[in-house]
Amino acid sequence: MLKIDLNCDLGESFGNYKIGLDEQVIQSVSSVNIACGWHAGDPVVLEKTIRLAKENGVAVGAHPGFPDLLGFGRRNMAISTEEAYAYTKYQLGAFYAFAKTNGMTIQHVKPHGAFYNMAGKDQKLAQAICKAIYDFDREIILLALAGSRMIEAAEELGMKAAQEFFADRAYDDDGNLAPRSMEGSVIHDTNVAISRVITMIKTGKVVSFTGKEINLKCDSICVHGDNSSAVEFVRTIRERLIKEGICIAPLHDICK
Amino acid sequence: MLKIDLNCDLGESFGNYKIGLDEQVIQSVSSVNIACGWHAGDPVVLEKTIRLAKENGVAVGAHPGFPDLLGFGRRNMAISTEEAYAYTKYQLGAFYAFAKTNGMTIQHVKPHGAFYNMAGKDQKLAQAICKAIYDFDREIILLALAGSRMIEAAEELGMKAAQEFFADRAYDDDGNLAPRSMEGSVIHDTNVAISRVITMIKTGKVVSFTGKEINLKCDSICVHGDNSSAVEFVRTIRERLIKEGICIAPLHDICK
Amino acid sequence: MLKIDLNCDLGESFGNYKIGLDEQVIQSVSSVNIACGWHAGDPVVLEKTIRLAKENGVAVGAHPGFPDLLGFGRRNMAISTEEAYAYTKYQLGAFYAFAKTNGMTIQHVKPHGAFYNMAGKDQKLAQAICKAIYDFDREIILLALAGSRMIEAAEELGMKAAQEFFADRAYDDDGNLAPRSMEGSVIHDTNVAISRVITMIKTGKVVSFTGKEINLKCDSICVHGDNSSAVEFVRTIRERLIKEGICIAPLHDICK
Amino acid sequence: MLKIDLNCDLGESFGNYKIGLDEQVIQSVSSVNIACGWHAGDPVVLEKTIRLAKENGVAVGAHPGFPDLLGFGRRNMAISTEEAYAYTKYQLGAFYAFAKTNGMTIQHVKPHGAFYNMAGKDQKLAQAICKAIYDFDREIILLALAGSRMIEAAEELGMKAAQEFFADRAYDDDGNLAPRSMEGSVIHDTNVAISRVITMIKTGKVVSFTGKEINLKCDSICVHGDNSSAVEFVRTIRERLIKEGICIAPLHDICK
Repeated sequence: MLKIDLNCDLGESFGNYKIGLDEQVIQSVSSVNIACGWHAGDPVVLEKTIRLAKENGVAVGAHPGFPDLLGFGRRNMAISTEEAYAYTKYQLGAFYAFAKTNGMTIQHVKPHGAFYNMAGKDQKLAQAICKAIYDFDREIILLALAGSRMIEAAEELGMKAAQEFFADRAYDDDGNLAPRSMEGSVIHDTNVAISRVITMIKTGKVVSFTGKEINLKCDSICVHGDNSSAVEFVRTIRERLIKEGICIAPLHDICK
Repeated sequence: MLKIDLNCDLGESFGNYKIGLDEQVIQSVSSVNIACGWHAGDPVVLEKTIRLAKENGVAVGAHPGFPDLLGFGRRNMAISTEEAYAYTKYQLGAFYAFAKTNGMTIQHVKPHGAFYNMAGKDQKLAQAICKAIYDFDREIILLALAGSRMIEAAEELGMKAAQEFFADRAYDDDGNLAPRSMEGSVIHDTNVAISRVITMIKTGKVVSFTGKEINLKCDSICVHGDNSSAVEFVRTIRERLIKEGICIAPLHDICK
Repeated sequence: MLKIDLNCDLGESFGNYKIGLDEQVIQSVSSVNIACGWHAGDPVVLEKTIRLAKENGVAVGAHPGFPDLLGFGRRNMAISTEEAYAYTKYQLGAFYAFAKTNGMTIQHVKPHGAFYNMAGKDQKLAQAICKAIYDFDREIILLALAGSRMIEAAEELGMKAAQEFFADRAYDDDGNLAPRSMEGSVIHDTNVAISRVITMIKTGKVVSFTGKEINLKCDSICVHGDNSSAVEFVRTIRERLIKEGICIAPLHDICK
Repeated sequence: MLKIDLNCDLGESFGNYKIGLDEQVIQSVSSVNIACGWHAGDPVVLEKTIRLAKENGVAVGAHPGFPDLLGFGRRNMAISTEEAYAYTKYQLGAFYAFAKTNGMTIQHVKPHGAFYNMAGKDQKLAQAICKAIYDFDREIILLALAGSRMIEAAEELGMKAAQEFFADRAYDDDGNLAPRSMEGSVIHDTNVAISRVITMIKTGKVVSFTGKEINLKCDSICVHGDNSSAVEFVRTIRERLIKEGICIAPLHDICK
């Protein structure tokens, strides 16, 4: 049977600041990436979010980011590999305390925002992050951009790596995301986006923006819970996938 | 054989800021309390400090503090018990990542500064902190002020608790530290301080500032590595204790 | 003609985190207290908020708080008077840069949350804050709790001080706010709240929760823009005050 | 008479963390760049540092940096021009409060670390920073790398701009600093460094690492107070310059 994971960022509120429709979107996904208190989240939010995940039976992963709350972890920062290694370990450990005390296992790690983007292109950064995860627990799955340096680094270490697909983004002939600045790089038509996902799952192929059919075998679809229409999209894609006979399953069920 | 632990704060540097003579003081103590990145310390410092502790064969403990780097965790903050619980767990987990990946076990937790002082007097805060430690790992020893609410809270939960003695501070008739504002509350004479420590270890008694002999059975002596004279004091006390036939041993050897 | 100021906190968003219906509530008030980037707000938000205030023709004040973004400045912190002085000056100066470059004058300073509450009761803290404002610019009005230590400290220095009234809170016989823990301390009936405001403005009197009529001459009413019902309350109180022939005017028009 | 400014970073301590021999180095320089609480410094340190500068009769400038205390402002961060503008204004305003209340004028602004380096090469970033300074006070001098985008941006706006010389760094044929990674890029011989400074002041020329004589007219020499040998170097250069008949004068005396 065909399987796919749906993953979503969660637990991005901070102190008095609330963000994301966590309670709603969690009902439609199979894995959640929980902020670890650096670019977003805080210890009280972490506790609540882990409990929410447990109640909803979804798998949890750590979502470490840059030390840049002001920029929500979305701004590139030139950190050293030593820092990347230690920052990942720190956030992973903090996350672990909440998972462990709530009887949950860390399924995966997905770096956040600029940390994710930079590490996707920078071999040394990717290796530092993967080494931190691997040193902490070899069973944890890395979730990252399909075909990126992150996936390579995880495989080098013998870690399990899950490839992520962006339903609403155009790809180039090499399987890279088309830059956001390019016209047509973001797919706004929900039906088109869902059709691409279904094709990718069934055939392992996607059509690039030049019209070429490329190989792209992904394990997880990245979705969002920022606002009502995002949550509605997640509900729709979930229903459509199920109708197509595709099973929504957490990563640990897919990347064995 | 009589045994005592010598404990010292370590790993309080932050980014470009260096503090403490860690490499020197670690040679004379048996347990170290390592800052977890909130009131002091950072992930890179944590990594280095854990490795330093391992090389020197000393036992390590987490030293969680308030989210107040600007105040070095020394200013009282009115946090809720829910926050105290989550903040302790967060810092403990972060610390755990560095201990685990370096093959070390967390021996103890000692809250820092104002967190330590407030929890020593506030039952609910003490219970929240102890619950966090207990939920994370029941084998971890709490290190706190002798006779404080912290010790009570740990014992209520069935945790191991180690009582700490301050060599350079006067005690009142109830075994509490005399307030710093009181004349004579700080003992400046090294010989007097060391004699008090030795008497306490041998007899379980100390003379209060009113002249009364009180019972005070401690497991660990708190020492400092902030400057050369502090380090010199640690060396001296260590030598004197050994001469008196007292064994310097980590907490896990004492609190069984 | 009777006059009253309506003041509201503004500019409390931070980075990616949005909070408050600033664009709506600003239409009904005469003065705004703008967060200065410590307990809330950031430089980009400051710039936008000052511009919003200018467009809407409302007077602006700095709203300094504790260095506690995680607690939104609502948790008591035991800072020294030297720190209170320097923290106030720092935030006031930062605020000034945005006011000045947008051609606006700083009308007032109102400390935020726990900083406001602690300084209202602590003479030395109150004096430190007022001294910082006074040293920076003697024309700035202090806006604080009626009858508090803050008002006393400002008057001692010869500063202009504006007294603030809480429409939805019960007062005791001495003109202090009844503690929130007391039943009936918060007035939920909008009509009752507005009637109390009108009586206070017209007669300088308010009925305490014991039923006693006390003197309370206030210059400003504290209102909120956190949610739709709060904004609706501000619109209602504004209309009712105008119907009663009371002019809504900024503090600088009232405290001459 | 030939004149030159000697500038040094100051006020980089933070809370309990002390850094720099401020009291010593200040005796030999004419201008100081004071950290504004983002990459280093805090309000209490700002107050003390401004007073120290006043006592020693040196001119003061703001030294704004990235919001990255953990990285001491030395790591590149991809901030937007809107952010650069607002961040500069915020720190400049905060600094102003301490200058004003101590009766001092802001002579200059020199961005710090990675903010300085990035803005030196990026026209839009340079323009945003200069615009913030210019909007705040048109009399403030920009102090930046000779020949950089920063100097260009300041001149475009009609601001006064002071060019800075690095005594211990090699230059390429275009007047840019040789990259630190290049062998010979850092000049370790004090006598060689001082001779280059004197030649530059007297002739407006310096020899590049390829041996070519290039034009480089600087207004200020950047020196450091991090440690005893740095302070000793500043004393030596000061003495040598005076012996050569060169006057050590603050920027406002040079850039008229």
